[in-house]
Amino acid sequence: MTLAKFASFYTSDGQGYGLVSDHGIIDLSRRYCSKWPTLREVIADGALTRLADEAATLAPDVSLADIRFEIPIPAPEKIICVGVNFPDRNEEYRDGQAAPPNPSLFIRFPRSFTGHGQPLIRPPESPQLDYEGEIVIVIGKGGRRIPEGSALDHIAALSLCNEGTIRDWVRHAKFNVTQGKNFDRTGSIGPWLVPFTDEAQIADIKLETRVNGWVRQQDRTSRMIFSFRKIINYVSTFTTLVPGDVIVTGTPTGAGARFDPPIWLKPGDVVEVEADGIGLLRNPIADEV
Amino acid sequence: MTLAKFASFYTSDGQGYGLVSDHGIIDLSRRYCSKWPTLREVIADGALTRLADEAATLAPDVSLADIRFEIPIPAPEKIICVGVNFPDRNEEYRDGQAAPPNPSLFIRFPRSFTGHGQPLIRPPESPQLDYEGEIVIVIGKGGRRIPEGSALDHIAALSLCNEGTIRDWVRHAKFNVTQGKNFDRTGSIGPWLVPFTDEAQIADIKLETRVNGWVRQQDRTSRMIFSFRKIINYVSTFTTLVPGDVIVTGTPTGAGARFDPPIWLKPGDVVEVEADGIGLLRNPIADEV
Repeated sequence: MTLAKFASFYTSDGQGYGLVSDHGIIDLSRRYCSKWPTLREVIADGALTRLADEAATLAPDVSLADIRFEIPIPAPEKIICVGVNFPDRNEEYRDGQAAPPNPSLFIRFPRSFTGHGQPLIRPPESPQLDYEGEIVIVIGKGGRRIPEGSALDHIAALSLCNEGTIRDWVRHAKFNVTQGKNFDRTGSIGPWLVPFTDEAQIADIKLETRVNGWVRQQDRTSRMIFSFRKIINYVSTFTTLVPGDVIVTGTPTGAGARFDPPIWLKPGDVVEVEADGIGLLRNPIADEV
Repeated sequence: MTLAKFASFYTSDGQGYGLVSDHGIIDLSRRYCSKWPTLREVIADGALTRLADEAATLAPDVSLADIRFEIPIPAPEKIICVGVNFPDRNEEYRDGQAAPPNPSLFIRFPRSFTGHGQPLIRPPESPQLDYEGEIVIVIGKGGRRIPEGSALDHIAALSLCNEGTIRDWVRHAKFNVTQGKNFDRTGSIGPWLVPFTDEAQIADIKLETRVNGWVRQQDRTSRMIFSFRKIINYVSTFTTLVPGDVIVTGTPTGAGARFDPPIWLKPGDVVEVEADGIGLLRNPIADEV
C-alpha cells in the first residue's frame, strides 16, 4: 500500500494543496478550497483519509516542476518543539545530569520554516547554522489532558522537520532558546503530510539526517526518551491542543555543533532528513540576500 | 486629551471590537467588520488613529455590562515575552551574573491569556500561580532588522499584561520556560489598546501590580534594562515583525515567588496591573472547573 502524500505549495496562481504522485500534483485546493481553505481545515474536519480515497483516481493537474513546496500546515495555531529526546543527545550536554523528568519545550513561528526544496537561509548575524532532523506529528483531534493510552488517536498525520538552528543564538541570553530557533527560514517542514494509520507506523522507524550524502544523525524512534504518547499527554496538560497543531519531536545525536571543531552548514551544502514511511525532506543552504 | 481605548470583546452576538467610553462601547465591528475583521487588520491598515477620530462623536451601542473583554488582538501572529528586564529582578536570580547582554525571550500562545475582568485560572496541576505585571507594545509597521533609531515608529499601540505564570512548571525541564508560561488562561492582556503617540508616552511611566490592593510590584519604564527601542531592534534581528505582533516587555521585581515563603495567587484574590496613561487591567483568580 502506498500512503497518500498531502503537500501545500505555491504555483503561479497562488497558494494551494494537493496530493503528490510520481507524475505530478493532484490539485485539491482548486476543487475544495471553499470548503477547506488549507490542509488545516481538512484535518480539522477529519477528512484527510476520505479525501485521499476520493482523489486517488484523479490525474495530476500540475507538474512538480511548476510548484514550490510550502510547509504542510501554513498557519498552525502552534508549533511546539521537544528539545532533548534521544539518550545520547542528553549525554552530549555533559552536565552530569540524568535524563530529565519532563520534556524541554520551545516554540517556533511558522516563518522560521520553509518548504521542501527551498533553501535554508544562513543569516549574516552568524555562521553557526546547524541541522536537526526530526519527526513531526500533526494533531487531528484536539484535547486537553489527553491520556497516554488514547494519545495516538489524536494524531492526524506525520511529516519531517529540519529544525535548523543558529547555534550561538540559542545561548544568547540568560534563559530560553527562542532567538536561536526562530531566525526566518532557517528550518524546514515537509515534504508532505502522510496520514497517520496506527502505532506500528511510528513505533520503531529509522530517522536519518545526511549532509552532502554523509550520514550525520541516525537513530530509531523506539529509543526516544519521551514517546509520542508521553509528549501529547504532557503538552496537553498545560495547553489545549487543536487540529493542525504541529509537534516536532526531537533530534538524534550528531548535530554539527557536536563535532570538534564544529561543522556548520554553508552555502552549497544539501541536507536530507529521511524517515521510514514518511519521506525525504531535502534543502540546500543559501546565504541571505 | 483623552486617548482612545480600543477593546475586543464578546457579546451575545459574538466577537467584536470597539471604542470604550465611560458610557459604554461604540461597536466598530458592526460598522467595519467586512473591511477589518479584527483590530489586527485595523492596525495593519494603519487606521487606528483615523478610526478613533471618525468614531469619536458616535454614541455607545452596548453597555459595558453586556460585554466580556477579550484580549485586544485575538489572534496575533506572535506573542513574544521578555524575561528579565528590570535591574532588581536580575539580582533576584542570585546567580552572581551581571545584567545579561541580550534579552531573554519566550513565546506564549494566545490561549494562555484571557481578557480584562475574566478570571485567571489556577490549574489543578500546581498551586504556584504567580502574577507579573508588564507593559505591552503592539507592532503597527512590520519589518526586519529595525534600527533602534526608528524602532518606535513601528509601534501602533500600547496595552498591559498580567503575564501569569505557573512557577514550578517554568523549571519543569532542562531548558526553557515554555510550559510554565502557557497554561490556558493563566495570564491576561488588556483592558484595551491605547494608540501610541510618541516616546514621552512610554519613556518614564509607572508600572504597578497590586494583589487585593497591596502593592507588590512598582517600577518605572526608564529603569528597564532593555529599552522598547532595543527590544524591537533585537527581536526583529531574527524574525520579521508584522502588524499586530504583541511584545510583552518584562516585569519589575516583586512577584509572589520572591517572598519568603512565596505567596501564590488563590481563588478570591484580585490582581491589578496599572500603568500611567494606558489603563488598569484587573482579574480575579479562580480554580479551574
